[in-house]
Amino acid sequence: MAIDWSRLNIDPVALQAQIDQLGEVGAGPEGLYRPVYGEAWIEAMDLLDGWFADAGLVRRRDPMGSLIGRVEGTAPERVVLVGSHVDTVRMGGRYDGALGVLAGLASVRALLSAFGPPRKTLEVIGLCEEEGSRFPAPFWGSRGICGRIGRDEADLLLDGEGVSIGEAMRAVGLTPERIPDAKRHDIDAFFELHIEQGPVLENEHVDLGIPHTITGLRQIRVTVSGRQDHAGTTPMDLRLDPVVATADMIGRIAAAARTRGRPAVATIGFIGVLPGAVNVVAQEVSFTVDTRHSDADLRRRLIADIEQTVDEVGRLHGVKTEITILTDHEPVPLDDSLRSVLRDAATEESLSYLEIASGAGHDSQVFAQHVPTAMVFVPSQSGRSHTPEEHTPIEQVIPGIRTLSRALHHLAYAK
Amino acid sequence: MAIDWSRLNIDPVALQAQIDQLGEVGAGPEGLYRPVYGEAWIEAMDLLDGWFADAGLVRRRDPMGSLIGRVEGTAPERVVLVGSHVDTVRMGGRYDGALGVLAGLASVRALLSAFGPPRKTLEVIGLCEEEGSRFPAPFWGSRGICGRIGRDEADLLLDGEGVSIGEAMRAVGLTPERIPDAKRHDIDAFFELHIEQGPVLENEHVDLGIPHTITGLRQIRVTVSGRQDHAGTTPMDLRLDPVVATADMIGRIAAAARTRGRPAVATIGFIGVLPGAVNVVAQEVSFTVDTRHSDADLRRRLIADIEQTVDEVGRLHGVKTEITILTDHEPVPLDDSLRSVLRDAATEESLSYLEIASGAGHDSQVFAQHVPTAMVFVPSQSGRSHTPEEHTPIEQVIPGIRTLSRALHHLAYAK
Repeated sequence: MAIDWSRLNIDPVALQAQIDQLGEVGAGPEGLYRPVYGEAWIEAMDLLDGWFADAGLVRRRDPMGSLIGRVEGTAPERVVLVGSHVDTVRMGGRYDGALGVLAGLASVRALLSAFGPPRKTLEVIGLCEEEGSRFPAPFWGSRGICGRIGRDEADLLLDGEGVSIGEAMRAVGLTPERIPDAKRHDIDAFFELHIEQGPVLENEHVDLGIPHTITGLRQIRVTVSGRQDHAGTTPMDLRLDPVVATADMIGRIAAAARTRGRPAVATIGFIGVLPGAVNVVAQEVSFTVDTRHSDADLRRRLIADIEQTVDEVGRLHGVKTEITILTDHEPVPLDDSLRSVLRDAATEESLSYLEIASGAGHDSQVFAQHVPTAMVFVPSQSGRSHTPEEHTPIEQVIPGIRTLSRALHHLAYAK
Repeated sequence: MAIDWSRLNIDPVALQAQIDQLGEVGAGPEGLYRPVYGEAWIEAMDLLDGWFADAGLVRRRDPMGSLIGRVEGTAPERVVLVGSHVDTVRMGGRYDGALGVLAGLASVRALLSAFGPPRKTLEVIGLCEEEGSRFPAPFWGSRGICGRIGRDEADLLLDGEGVSIGEAMRAVGLTPERIPDAKRHDIDAFFELHIEQGPVLENEHVDLGIPHTITGLRQIRVTVSGRQDHAGTTPMDLRLDPVVATADMIGRIAAAARTRGRPAVATIGFIGVLPGAVNVVAQEVSFTVDTRHSDADLRRRLIADIEQTVDEVGRLHGVKTEITILTDHEPVPLDDSLRSVLRDAATEESLSYLEIASGAGHDSQVFAQHVPTAMVFVPSQSGRSHTPEEHTPIEQVIPGIRTLSRALHHLAYAK
């Protein structure tokens, strides 16, 4: 029997109103900030809770504090989960995270209205502390569900004021001892809609992105030690200038990523010079390199190239170099079968899409290591993200939600 | 009648003792600091005053606060002046400035002892605020003598705590209104012995440097504006990264100075990156360039080259650039005739010397624009300067003082 998709109704006006109302919570002159377990975050979660109730979902908080809205299926044991996170970075925008929760809610609401109760249980989730912008605890909510929180993490992970994430949980009525109970075994699939956070979809004039992988990443700090000298009295040929050596390294590091083509990236986001005076040849430079690639083997090779470049250029300039790894993780592939469902759904909606790598991290990369997981990207205006300028016109959001809805239907309704 | 130079006796032990005793004044765990008109500076000047008295000099303070020790000549109206400064930079060493005053004193004392009173008057001077490390008033003492202090400078030049240099003068019993009286018309020559502050003499294994010029200098700040982007989601080919553009500029700026050879130098001593986060493609970079050359024309061409490089590389990378000039002055040639006297003196002492440009600034560059002026450089161990490591072994100081003494004799004693 053919499904009558004309019955699926996503209301753009209502959705925009929710985006805007949620976007006021935690808003300051420099953008949004909703650190997990803080006042703005609580207010945002309560707002969602009300909207979940309006949509007829049965709400609960899991032991991490994530908000879950449930529609029991006729065969209720297995769950199809959809959602994203509510916490934001400092100076953040209205779309990163929040849109994924509202999209999940809009999808489930529209599916219920069009097709009645599902066969499998549908759940919408607002996860907590995806960004790690209060605690060094990114993916806290999804790690809880996947059973990947270490025994001592609640006590050991501190915010900038020395408060542990466990204390912060207690302060909002949660019980850190119950963290292990957050682990679930009933999830058949996880879907997350998110803004792209980059300019590719807009530049390529396509409607959607269907990520095949969440990128692997290594962040390093490079320290380059030379010899401090008088800028006026030390001839160029007698210097050991770590600034000139660093400049040479940066040029070659960027070129190493650029010549490999997309999705290889290498970013030097920080440079510090000591002592940093106009008339002094520097003693020491430190800089960071953030290297990403969605292919595990190519990531390894790019990183090896970059680290070898640091070493070689250092020797060339007679300066000492030291590399410290700050963060490192492998790329995470998303589920082939769910991606195929999303591709079919987009095609049925007559939408263009690009299969790309996600260059940013998402809760999906945690879920994907435990349950079939896939993502839908909608375009980011001018590629802006993690800034108050973050924006996606509602007419570019709706196609993503319709695609998501067809995929949820396929998983939760179809026999 | 041949002069019996064996009678000229410079006592290395006494001189080293003075260097060491003076080097304790203002010493802290991070090096010396004797800001002008401060306690340590007063103590140092008083110490010198006592040593001047011991040597039989008639002492006075000029209206700037510089200490002058005088030996009247038999034809007393014209003066041959020798000396340097007592103030230091922060974290400074024992030799920069202080050695030149002690060398002048040792010279004049030895000349008096060997040859009796001079024909022209000999004066030894301890100048004030050469470094400009308390007030933005470098060469304050020498500018006073040369009549180059502006009418309002005493009120307008403030230290880090908002105290004007005029107030600081009053606090030590000086009268800023009398600054114009510091101007002199009786000086026939000024000599300054100084450490090289660079590695050239040591590297070339020569005894002395006889500078032909004090370098011209331009210090600029370059601002490079790109576009802030997510380090994970923005492909390399869609970035406007000011860090990569800056690295390209720095490489070419350093090369522009290096390929011209000595004494061209260009130093990038400071780099600041905004916002400066590991996972963010930067919005803006600012960096400084300190460019020096002793030839006026070559200095101009080197600066033009560097500023054109900034412009061209900026356009190449699609970023905006802006250049702000922080300091700019032309090279100052030293007196041909006095340099010839010094060369002859060095040769008579069987010393090797190098005619070089001074890459650092000195009171001599102010004097040289008003009276015949020349300098003697003694080697700096490992080229170190403006650091507690600053050192010149006493056996490398004595030849400089003997050369200086012969030159003073030539000017003040010879008919």
